[in-house]
Amino acid sequence: MNHTQFNLVLAEIRHDRTRGASELARRCLLILAEAARAQPAGSVAELREGLLALNAELARTRPSMAPIQNLLCRWREALTFDARTDLAVARRMAVERAESLIAASRQAVTDCAARTTNLLGPGRTVMTHSLGSTVVEVCRLLADQGVRMIVTESRPLMEGRRLAEQLSTWGTPTTLITDAQMGLFVAEADAVLVGADSVLADGAVVNKAGTYLLALAARDQGIPFYVCCESFKWRGVGQPPPELEEMAPAELETPDWPRVKVRNVYFDLTPARLVSAWIDETGVRWPETGP
Amino acid sequence: MNHTQFNLVLAEIRHDRTRGASELARRCLLILAEAARAQPAGSVAELREGLLALNAELARTRPSMAPIQNLLCRWREALTFDARTDLAVARRMAVERAESLIAASRQAVTDCAARTTNLLGPGRTVMTHSLGSTVVEVCRLLADQGVRMIVTESRPLMEGRRLAEQLSTWGTPTTLITDAQMGLFVAEADAVLVGADSVLADGAVVNKAGTYLLALAARDQGIPFYVCCESFKWRGVGQPPPELEEMAPAELETPDWPRVKVRNVYFDLTPARLVSAWIDETGVRWPETGP
Repeated sequence: MNHTQFNLVLAEIRHDRTRGASELARRCLLILAEAARAQPAGSVAELREGLLALNAELARTRPSMAPIQNLLCRWREALTFDARTDLAVARRMAVERAESLIAASRQAVTDCAARTTNLLGPGRTVMTHSLGSTVVEVCRLLADQGVRMIVTESRPLMEGRRLAEQLSTWGTPTTLITDAQMGLFVAEADAVLVGADSVLADGAVVNKAGTYLLALAARDQGIPFYVCCESFKWRGVGQPPPELEEMAPAELETPDWPRVKVRNVYFDLTPARLVSAWIDETGVRWPETGP
Repeated sequence: MNHTQFNLVLAEIRHDRTRGASELARRCLLILAEAARAQPAGSVAELREGLLALNAELARTRPSMAPIQNLLCRWREALTFDARTDLAVARRMAVERAESLIAASRQAVTDCAARTTNLLGPGRTVMTHSLGSTVVEVCRLLADQGVRMIVTESRPLMEGRRLAEQLSTWGTPTTLITDAQMGLFVAEADAVLVGADSVLADGAVVNKAGTYLLALAARDQGIPFYVCCESFKWRGVGQPPPELEEMAPAELETPDWPRVKVRNVYFDLTPARLVSAWIDETGVRWPETGP
């Protein structure tokens, strides 16, 4: 992959509006594996330096997405070679490390979805916002267990419509509503389930804008609000809160009026106090109850 | 106005998605005034009976809209005639009563907006949802007092866009956001101001779906949440809570998928406990503070 190709790939990841954080993180690892295989290098040190530079550039593409940061960091930490390592061996080690992290990420989604499915149980009505890979997997697992879904559109990109279409193929009875109707329908759900782009060390959740409103409505009406995501999405203690990415105002298809500024922030932050439980591939974490 | 014409007018009011509750209530009174002038009748009793029937049909068009109920009721209550009243005089009395109620409704909006403007004061950032005639009048009054507005789109009908366009003509600095971004932007406002389609006797507010979410976010972030509307919008004690009108799912322009039901409820109910103050043409009502 030459410099131009790599810049195209960086732009692809930066502007991707379809794939979730985990999927994009795996895409980053695939790119690194490809670079580890093919990047010109005269020595192991040169290979390592080049790969670390690519890694750093990939890490800057999507600051809101913890799995990209976490998986790239895990790969980078493994990029240490013995002085006597052969160049071909170093390439293979870097590729294998990327592949094993990709597999671990996939397995974490599967395990997290299985645990979430257990927690929810059969025959429930579940409400969600936006479209996360773990939530989709939960829906798939619950499809023949009598689940009913309430899905918001999630404007501007209407991920909720894509989820509704998918649910329809599984025969899941689904209610599709505008984002503004969240407060009207949350009481019809047994639980709210959302994914996350990142979870801060204190449990606050970065997810598609509107998640915070749904959490407020759920709390106000006594409906449990669950967050399911792999542990790769958790940020470490001391990591700064992520920048909430803003996308092109043009996505809102609004005419240009003088003095009117259109804003299109993609993510919001749901404080930990509104979360009933966090589920990852290792288990369910309930909030610590105060004294 | 013959029966066919009247049915057309009923359909016009039932399906109107542009005018607010007060404007539609005045439209109902205009229709009654026209009927009072022209409806065939051999006696005052016959005239009265015909007009009461029209009144009842108009009252059924928009159950969520208290001003329609209240102004029609006020007009109906005045439709009593002395046994010796001449038919022409009875017609004129019914017309004049409708016209005076229309004037009273207009004056109430003006006075309510003036009081709201005083409460907010100059130089504020005000956030709103949907498009109410009183809120628009407040924006007009504050336009040269340094007001800045944060406006939600209010999908599906995008009344917020219409408001943003109007604000632009007044030169008001305006931020336009999706409904899902409410929670991100409410903290930038000094106050939230919404209108109402109805206010229940206990102070709960029927307004465009999403108002409840904005009230929750405002409360969570310590921003005052004001409701401004004329007293004609208040429901009496003992009046049943209004049906929350649902409109055609087609307005959401969603493909037809098996097992997916699209819902399009226009209004939600914001409980009184989330309201910081109610403003009508007579003054500001603060919540009673408990013991």
